[in-house]
Amino acid sequence: MLLVNPFYSILQPTYLFQKVSRIVEQFKKESPEIPIISLGIGDVTQALPSLAIEALHNAVDEMAHANTFHGYGPEQGYDFLRTAIAKYDFQENLLSIDASEIFVSDGSKCDIANFQELFSPHVSVAIPDPVYPVYLDTNVMAGRSGQWKNDHYENIIPLPATKENNYIPLPPELHVDVIYLCFPNNPTGSAATKEVLEQFVDYAREHKALILFDAAYESFIRHPDIPHSIYEIKGAHSCAIEFRSLSKSAGFTGLRCAYTVVPHACMIYSENGEKYSLNKLWNRRQSTKFNGVAYPIQKAAAAMYTPSGQAQIRELTDSYLKNARIIRSTLEECTLTCTGGIHSPYIWTHTGQDSWDFFQHLLEHSSVICTPGDGFGLSGKEYVRFSALNTRTATLESVKRIRKALA
Amino acid sequence: MLLVNPFYSILQPTYLFQKVSRIVEQFKKESPEIPIISLGIGDVTQALPSLAIEALHNAVDEMAHANTFHGYGPEQGYDFLRTAIAKYDFQENLLSIDASEIFVSDGSKCDIANFQELFSPHVSVAIPDPVYPVYLDTNVMAGRSGQWKNDHYENIIPLPATKENNYIPLPPELHVDVIYLCFPNNPTGSAATKEVLEQFVDYAREHKALILFDAAYESFIRHPDIPHSIYEIKGAHSCAIEFRSLSKSAGFTGLRCAYTVVPHACMIYSENGEKYSLNKLWNRRQSTKFNGVAYPIQKAAAAMYTPSGQAQIRELTDSYLKNARIIRSTLEECTLTCTGGIHSPYIWTHTGQDSWDFFQHLLEHSSVICTPGDGFGLSGKEYVRFSALNTRTATLESVKRIRKALA
Repeated sequence: MLLVNPFYSILQPTYLFQKVSRIVEQFKKESPEIPIISLGIGDVTQALPSLAIEALHNAVDEMAHANTFHGYGPEQGYDFLRTAIAKYDFQENLLSIDASEIFVSDGSKCDIANFQELFSPHVSVAIPDPVYPVYLDTNVMAGRSGQWKNDHYENIIPLPATKENNYIPLPPELHVDVIYLCFPNNPTGSAATKEVLEQFVDYAREHKALILFDAAYESFIRHPDIPHSIYEIKGAHSCAIEFRSLSKSAGFTGLRCAYTVVPHACMIYSENGEKYSLNKLWNRRQSTKFNGVAYPIQKAAAAMYTPSGQAQIRELTDSYLKNARIIRSTLEECTLTCTGGIHSPYIWTHTGQDSWDFFQHLLEHSSVICTPGDGFGLSGKEYVRFSALNTRTATLESVKRIRKALA
Repeated sequence: MLLVNPFYSILQPTYLFQKVSRIVEQFKKESPEIPIISLGIGDVTQALPSLAIEALHNAVDEMAHANTFHGYGPEQGYDFLRTAIAKYDFQENLLSIDASEIFVSDGSKCDIANFQELFSPHVSVAIPDPVYPVYLDTNVMAGRSGQWKNDHYENIIPLPATKENNYIPLPPELHVDVIYLCFPNNPTGSAATKEVLEQFVDYAREHKALILFDAAYESFIRHPDIPHSIYEIKGAHSCAIEFRSLSKSAGFTGLRCAYTVVPHACMIYSENGEKYSLNKLWNRRQSTKFNGVAYPIQKAAAAMYTPSGQAQIRELTDSYLKNARIIRSTLEECTLTCTGGIHSPYIWTHTGQDSWDFFQHLLEHSSVICTPGDGFGLSGKEYVRFSALNTRTATLESVKRIRKALA
């Protein structure tokens, strides 16, 4: 009999966005006159930077002629892109990351989801709460979670981010093998200082653990003391993998380009203590199961790794950060406690009530959508996430309405 | 301790293309005057069809303006593409496949590699020999192979394609849960008749097994009696998944677009006999671990699913098939026995000697590269694969040299 992967049946359904849209659809039917504005979206809304557009057109023209056509590219990404990434994101900041440690892909979601394939099903895993649900779901599918009991998976160690710890989780108290981190965080928008990351790197080195560091929002960091990369921490090269994406920095959500840094110093072990290079294993995984990113997309990405490309990223993220300031200051005027929105496009707002009740109240009184926090974990039950990724016009209109609704 | 996935260490290194390029590099040093021609490549060489180019430019222009910009798309692919695929590849051939059964992706390699995640590690697997190595390697990584002993993995059932069975494997004699098939085949180029596929579908239905049908080369089929799809066989909707790609049909190897058909009728079972829909499980897998294909690439793919797009695919594949006829007739003139090259860009050639010896002889006497067959499995030890995917000019020059070298 064709037996199913038994762990898929443990996986909890993701009701969050389905439930949001069901409620919104119902509301639209009842109050069709007021146009709804979503501050719930995790997608970008501005046009692609002009340098990416230009590079795409040029690369498409190359594909139109046999002598400049590009077929299969290297599974790891073209050298021109890996070299440019290593230079602009690391070497220019005095971080020693080599092009051979950069693996280009079609998205951080895929990379983060796939990386755990290299681990034994028996490694123990710690995951922040609240957080982007992919870390959890992919470990459930791989059989590391145990059963779902009393609103959590019994074998996953949660790292709560709460008011008490200023929304920055602490390293686990017990031993774990793998720690997922996301800074600036989705959904809390909080950014970790050097001191915080040092604690995690110290923990990882002491426990021979591995940090999977999701830095998808690093381009929103503005304070010079906040690290953009885990590799700014001494010792991280031997205990951390970093995931980065052009989705939010350069608005590539519809183009699909990201990368993963796997330092040569990162090792993993067999039961009898033999060392294996994670860089080599990831290379084998990608060569076997992936065929590289489209040539025109890689050319567009490379165009962003130039001085003018970097300036366009800065301009784009500045604009979303201005939306974030507008939203956060409005919410604070309405006496809500907020975190995030400074080095992040997300504002995490304490509602003092069930997140679904707040969501419903805001929708009914302003036709503005936010995201109920309990979809991101138990610690989100009284929070909602506001996103600054909508347009300026929509943002300005929404805060006007929010002010009225919450006054 | 951070424990590695133990099955990666069972995985055999893939020496084939590395060994080929090492020998070729050495030869180039010794005989630098003669330009080498590769009939070993599995990549296309002609420019992208003009309709794809035009669609790409238009979609890139849309991305340049906020009001026509596209961010995240549906993980399953845009409806415009799923509907067009269902219509042109199935419904117009009177096959009942619905758009909701089509999952668009960035490559058949990824899809074939990932699909086995839905199965228990304990399902038994049959794999043709010779064949594209991804089916085997991904099952080894998932722990289904057992150890490597005497040149094969102990738990994988090989389905040999040999001169004796006219290079068409038969269904396994014993029970298996999953059967991989690839028609037209890489590397043998052989195409399966309706009768052959009926035997496999009958087997699958009798054994409650699942067929994973790789149809990446279906656009090269010319004889009206050879099925393009497994769903031309009665009963296949409940026991077969089909993988298709635009890589070889429309020359999309550098753009990355493929799709997988998962009929609603396909079921998988838990230990206690509960039924699960594979369509729903694959949907959950893709939603969790994948972020969809770039918008411009999907627009380019959709441009091929029009009457003029289909004509451009026909023109492109016709041209490669003409190369195939040129190569095959030359090899047969040299009294070599060939299969394939009629409904496939690959010609599988019996050399009557060790495949590496033949490869070396041909290289030294003609500076033409072919692919030694033993890289595709034990049954390939005396065979080499010639590819018709090079340009017409290179093909014509190479056969001139082959004729001299083998005369």
